[in-house]
Amino acid sequence: MTDEFAATEEIELRGHIIDSWVLPRVFDTIMDLGGAFEVLSIRVGKYKHESSYAHLRVGAPTPETLGAIVTQLQELGAALVGEEDVESRPAPKDGVLPPEFYSTTNLPTHLRIGGRWIPLVGTEMDLAIVLDRARGYAATRPMAQVRQGDDVVIGHEGIRVLPLERRRESEAFSFMNAAVSSERPKKLVIHEVAREIREIKARGGKILVVAGPAIVHSGAAPYLGELIRDGFVDVLFGGNAIAAHDVEAALFGTSLGVNLASGSLVEGGHRHHMRALNAIRLAGSLRAAVDQGVLTRGLMYEAVVKGITYVLAGSIRDDGPIPDVITDVLEAQDAMRQAIPGVEMALMIASMLHGIATGNLLPASVRTVAIDINPSVVTKLADRGSWQTIGLVTDAELFLRELTLALAQG
Amino acid sequence: MTDEFAATEEIELRGHIIDSWVLPRVFDTIMDLGGAFEVLSIRVGKYKHESSYAHLRVGAPTPETLGAIVTQLQELGAALVGEEDVESRPAPKDGVLPPEFYSTTNLPTHLRIGGRWIPLVGTEMDLAIVLDRARGYAATRPMAQVRQGDDVVIGHEGIRVLPLERRRESEAFSFMNAAVSSERPKKLVIHEVAREIREIKARGGKILVVAGPAIVHSGAAPYLGELIRDGFVDVLFGGNAIAAHDVEAALFGTSLGVNLASGSLVEGGHRHHMRALNAIRLAGSLRAAVDQGVLTRGLMYEAVVKGITYVLAGSIRDDGPIPDVITDVLEAQDAMRQAIPGVEMALMIASMLHGIATGNLLPASVRTVAIDINPSVVTKLADRGSWQTIGLVTDAELFLRELTLALAQG
Amino acid sequence: MTDEFAATEEIELRGHIIDSWVLPRVFDTIMDLGGAFEVLSIRVGKYKHESSYAHLRVGAPTPETLGAIVTQLQELGAALVGEEDVESRPAPKDGVLPPEFYSTTNLPTHLRIGGRWIPLVGTEMDLAIVLDRARGYAATRPMAQVRQGDDVVIGHEGIRVLPLERRRESEAFSFMNAAVSSERPKKLVIHEVAREIREIKARGGKILVVAGPAIVHSGAAPYLGELIRDGFVDVLFGGNAIAAHDVEAALFGTSLGVNLASGSLVEGGHRHHMRALNAIRLAGSLRAAVDQGVLTRGLMYEAVVKGITYVLAGSIRDDGPIPDVITDVLEAQDAMRQAIPGVEMALMIASMLHGIATGNLLPASVRTVAIDINPSVVTKLADRGSWQTIGLVTDAELFLRELTLALAQG
Amino acid sequence: MTDEFAATEEIELRGHIIDSWVLPRVFDTIMDLGGAFEVLSIRVGKYKHESSYAHLRVGAPTPETLGAIVTQLQELGAALVGEEDVESRPAPKDGVLPPEFYSTTNLPTHLRIGGRWIPLVGTEMDLAIVLDRARGYAATRPMAQVRQGDDVVIGHEGIRVLPLERRRESEAFSFMNAAVSSERPKKLVIHEVAREIREIKARGGKILVVAGPAIVHSGAAPYLGELIRDGFVDVLFGGNAIAAHDVEAALFGTSLGVNLASGSLVEGGHRHHMRALNAIRLAGSLRAAVDQGVLTRGLMYEAVVKGITYVLAGSIRDDGPIPDVITDVLEAQDAMRQAIPGVEMALMIASMLHGIATGNLLPASVRTVAIDINPSVVTKLADRGSWQTIGLVTDAELFLRELTLALAQG
Repeated sequence: MTDEFAATEEIELRGHIIDSWVLPRVFDTIMDLGGAFEVLSIRVGKYKHESSYAHLRVGAPTPETLGAIVTQLQELGAALVGEEDVESRPAPKDGVLPPEFYSTTNLPTHLRIGGRWIPLVGTEMDLAIVLDRARGYAATRPMAQVRQGDDVVIGHEGIRVLPLERRRESEAFSFMNAAVSSERPKKLVIHEVAREIREIKARGGKILVVAGPAIVHSGAAPYLGELIRDGFVDVLFGGNAIAAHDVEAALFGTSLGVNLASGSLVEGGHRHHMRALNAIRLAGSLRAAVDQGVLTRGLMYEAVVKGITYVLAGSIRDDGPIPDVITDVLEAQDAMRQAIPGVEMALMIASMLHGIATGNLLPASVRTVAIDINPSVVTKLADRGSWQTIGLVTDAELFLRELTLALAQG
Repeated sequence: MTDEFAATEEIELRGHIIDSWVLPRVFDTIMDLGGAFEVLSIRVGKYKHESSYAHLRVGAPTPETLGAIVTQLQELGAALVGEEDVESRPAPKDGVLPPEFYSTTNLPTHLRIGGRWIPLVGTEMDLAIVLDRARGYAATRPMAQVRQGDDVVIGHEGIRVLPLERRRESEAFSFMNAAVSSERPKKLVIHEVAREIREIKARGGKILVVAGPAIVHSGAAPYLGELIRDGFVDVLFGGNAIAAHDVEAALFGTSLGVNLASGSLVEGGHRHHMRALNAIRLAGSLRAAVDQGVLTRGLMYEAVVKGITYVLAGSIRDDGPIPDVITDVLEAQDAMRQAIPGVEMALMIASMLHGIATGNLLPASVRTVAIDINPSVVTKLADRGSWQTIGLVTDAELFLRELTLALAQG
Repeated sequence: MTDEFAATEEIELRGHIIDSWVLPRVFDTIMDLGGAFEVLSIRVGKYKHESSYAHLRVGAPTPETLGAIVTQLQELGAALVGEEDVESRPAPKDGVLPPEFYSTTNLPTHLRIGGRWIPLVGTEMDLAIVLDRARGYAATRPMAQVRQGDDVVIGHEGIRVLPLERRRESEAFSFMNAAVSSERPKKLVIHEVAREIREIKARGGKILVVAGPAIVHSGAAPYLGELIRDGFVDVLFGGNAIAAHDVEAALFGTSLGVNLASGSLVEGGHRHHMRALNAIRLAGSLRAAVDQGVLTRGLMYEAVVKGITYVLAGSIRDDGPIPDVITDVLEAQDAMRQAIPGVEMALMIASMLHGIATGNLLPASVRTVAIDINPSVVTKLADRGSWQTIGLVTDAELFLRELTLALAQG
Repeated sequence: MTDEFAATEEIELRGHIIDSWVLPRVFDTIMDLGGAFEVLSIRVGKYKHESSYAHLRVGAPTPETLGAIVTQLQELGAALVGEEDVESRPAPKDGVLPPEFYSTTNLPTHLRIGGRWIPLVGTEMDLAIVLDRARGYAATRPMAQVRQGDDVVIGHEGIRVLPLERRRESEAFSFMNAAVSSERPKKLVIHEVAREIREIKARGGKILVVAGPAIVHSGAAPYLGELIRDGFVDVLFGGNAIAAHDVEAALFGTSLGVNLASGSLVEGGHRHHMRALNAIRLAGSLRAAVDQGVLTRGLMYEAVVKGITYVLAGSIRDDGPIPDVITDVLEAQDAMRQAIPGVEMALMIASMLHGIATGNLLPASVRTVAIDINPSVVTKLADRGSWQTIGLVTDAELFLRELTLALAQG
């Protein structure tokens, strides 16, 4: 089978490769990309907790295709047999990578330098890897931040990606490894999520909430405010909209002109919204507005008073904006990136844009719960190829109410 | 303007024709259908509670178009000036109407017989009207139930449709005359709905619930069961699926094989589902299953024990079915039709097929709340051209939990 | 691992069990249902076209759980080691099965009778199996059609389910084994589907179209009419709505009052719709209307003239209905069931209710393409656990236009 | 009625105030915001083309409420009787407005300065107005661009908003004043849009396309490329994603790793995507890449070669980005704002974020067509309170194919 191909490579797989579906995905990948394989040997553990082993020869019609296949297999945890050191080349210009650069996954990765395997610092997908061979150090770096001459990893030699094990315990993240449709019992899942939050907090882990403006429009901001006040939120990501609407609610009792206490239309258009923006701009910042007694309640008030880290990332549809909003998107990404270490769970609530952006930045190991009433959004957010992500197709307002209830019962 | 047209007719409008948007809709209708109009006179009340009056001449290029326009205007409340008695013709065959038959609206209607206006019995849209001129009696009748020789109303003379006034009080059905998106505060609306339910029950009105199977899948059946037990539901419409899944949950604790207490998959496919169907078929009916002690809990158990009216209407995708299911769709429609008199509010929860079917049968005056997580379904269900209908884009499970809470608080 | 359980059973798996993901799904199923396993032996083919073999011991805490697990594994193709003859028991009443009855899958199945394996006649899921042991014959039967005393298969001994192999060739049904979102190139898939249709027709296979009313509303009926006329459709399933709207379009040029040539609103409500129904009821049937020269064009006209099999299945929301509509849903299911043998491809176009009903009736081997603009509908229709089904999230109108173009280019 | 209120104001309405639904919306607005009114006089045109007149006294419980009501009525075209000059106050700080600032609509507006009505320069909603009283000049300005001391309009005196007339001719934008669901005939609408595009181009107007990345993923980029090459697109708005995917398609034939010619998966993840970004970054810009012969086809190639104006606005989820992308969102808004004058039609295709941003910038008079397969997106984009906007729930790929066909037929 593989004999007919000029280009071949031997790979090995170890661990729960059958139970975790790694082996069939390896077979699929090879065939989907136009290659072929031969199973040189295989050992399957007698019991499910035992580790297995497989040794394959992979063939492809061209070296390029073989490279593509091997790169994919590495993401699944395959290791090349007789592996060499990682290859690298200098960046030709600031913000530009050598053409054959290796692009990272969101999984823990090791690199072979001088015959030793060292861990990659900074787990995030679609980044470059910059080496310091002398110090035996390797770290991820965004394309735009690479400087001319940086020693950038290329090719696929000397790279090992460690796939996540699938968890089997009786918990939301094991039984719910796909999107939870609106037709499944969500109350159970929400209470599971509450239990995980308490566990993470108990061991000193951080909880990240990515929040969309519908939380304010739907009157659910007080629930999120309560979660912040009670210490269940360590990091908050959002945009200008959620902050502006929250300030509008705090100052005028409305969100986009809808009275949140009566549900009735108070005044059309964006008038209150624009005034809320202006009020914070006059104060200088959200913190200044709190200090000056201008902002005395709401989600952002709670975030300021509790002292949690929040990043407001600008978007092209922003009015104002609130002075805290980072209007340059690369700077905003970086501010988000800085806030992620230590985060063990991310709740993405009714926030497609910021949710996707956050998903790009998170290591695969962060447990992620994507909540939206639109199944397409949940599918997009939850589609990260990891057992750690669940999607909940449900109403953000009622989700937050239930989660607050569940955590209060704690 | 109207002079250029051979076919003209004069119409009058009375009441809150400007405030209720009747007059602009009249103008739109005439122009959309290719006609023209001339305002012969208009009087607008000085204050909003005063009634107004308008007198128009309507013209159209052909008598057919004029007929179409006038029919539409009648649905908006227009009356022909110098109106004649209603016209009729015998049905040519069983189940067949004379070609020019008048098709009803879902609004209260009066007919002119022998110079006197009499009310039409049975308000439902898209039906024929059968007259008993001798007794001065007129009633709606479905096409399929008309018998040869029945005296069927044709044309558009002698027919007055009474539009509903728009309510202005501070309540869900006034401030919420359109679909409530998932981005608006729904908790408020749910509490408003709870208040209306209590008012309707207090004055002896009936509440109809149209329930889809997702209520059971999502674990929300106990809430609906509680509403039935507490006397808040008088009539229940559903299909085979909700009854079968509810029985499955009562007998096996699962819904489509998902354990409702743990959320985990108990057993694939439809095995429990099929066994639940078989168990009730063996008993003979839901009531028999309750009497024999086979069925001891769940939604249908509560409905049987409480003695409320329920109609299970069959559909082409049914397994089994449960013996209570009416498998002929015309018979099922009729059973639903019989159960509607006295109903003042209809809750359509996660049920597109049965919800639309029920919407077809209800008078426009019945306050209708359509709840679904899919905005397209809500739009379809709520699009009945009446101020009495609201749509809620939200999660049925969390909606029922909140409604039960709101009604329990009394 | 399995020793701790009283209940154990040995199973064997043969074929492409790794490549086709059968083995990992077997492991998952055992663990998801609370069992454990031990791999007694495994042989993996050296090349992908070689067959593999696995021998497992499965344990569970109770015999009931073990039974549930084994039933699931059988659906994946597992065979019990040392298997016995199939067990059976007489049906206790008309339309009622013995409690432990075996419920079928939609996969080819063999039964062991008198030590010999015989094929099950009639592949359809969720049915009972009735045996004629004397003649060595076994056939599926719907629960409602079982008669008292029929010899019904129970338990899980002596039953072998043959899973479908995954196809690997370069074609729509191999590369597209999941739903095709609106964001993937659909023109390619449509042309692939056209190619498959031509192949199936060339070898004498049948094409089934399940058609929803939006096809008419959106002006796409002429494309479907063309496909029928050109012989690409052998069987048509639909409801009252598509036939009624099609007749309305043929008689009045409108669909629900919208002029299909100009897109403008001709006349509100259902007037033309009701008249169309009445006209066919007067004629007696669609065929009679064609014979009498009442119906001279449209989808149903083409179906009548071409003489293809069509089944119109009633639903609870029907007006009229058209006389050809089967108003009893069990009778309608049976009429659909009779029309399925020979069908090799099913196109489900903008039809959730009839699409799901058809999906329930089809063997897994029928290639199924589910087309709807609503991703939830596509997910529901395409979620049949088979490599043979693809879903296309796209516009039915433009899909049919492109398919007609592709088939015309033939 | 109004006597009971301390605060009253007299307003006048002129024009097609009944036909265009202005009068009933005025009544609704007053009552919805808690006011009352008295009709002092009314004159309705005898024929539909004649203008009407109404004179009302409006009352409210507080001057603040009256101000809110009057502001809303001004947006509907009401003029205060006995109106004074516009009021203004200096901006207190850079980027901060006086608290009572007037926030603009997207309708043509006149201001009374020194007793004379002058037109406002720059029609865009939610902006401030900065006056030059000496020169009799007034222009809109974004909050963030206001400088300390700028003379900013406040209150609601001396401001007249001119509502758009509703068009009645037989064209897409008259019969389609709401979202066109997937169930309506869209081919007709697409051909209407093509006709309008030709008319606009014939009279020298500009066409703006706002394009989302799904255009490339779905293989529809060549259609848009053809529209650009044929001169039907003057301005193109998009983000990093569409440009990056288009470059990926041009360089590698893939979009997010999917081969656009075969639909099959070439290589997982973002590898080609990242390389495409790197290639353009190496070249320096899209234009440089074209000049250097790196980029030789695709959408962006056509845009560069044709010399049309394009603005790529950054977003928080961007990789790379392409050097042409404006990463600061306020700068990007401004670049978009500069490109809008002269635009008479905007097509927003599968682009929620950039579509909403563009909608915020456009005058209400620009005919806008929002195309998306997700009805929620269409609703959001088309909900601009103008007769000039239509929404099409359809597939972007097939829409562009049909539009290209329709324009080629010319």
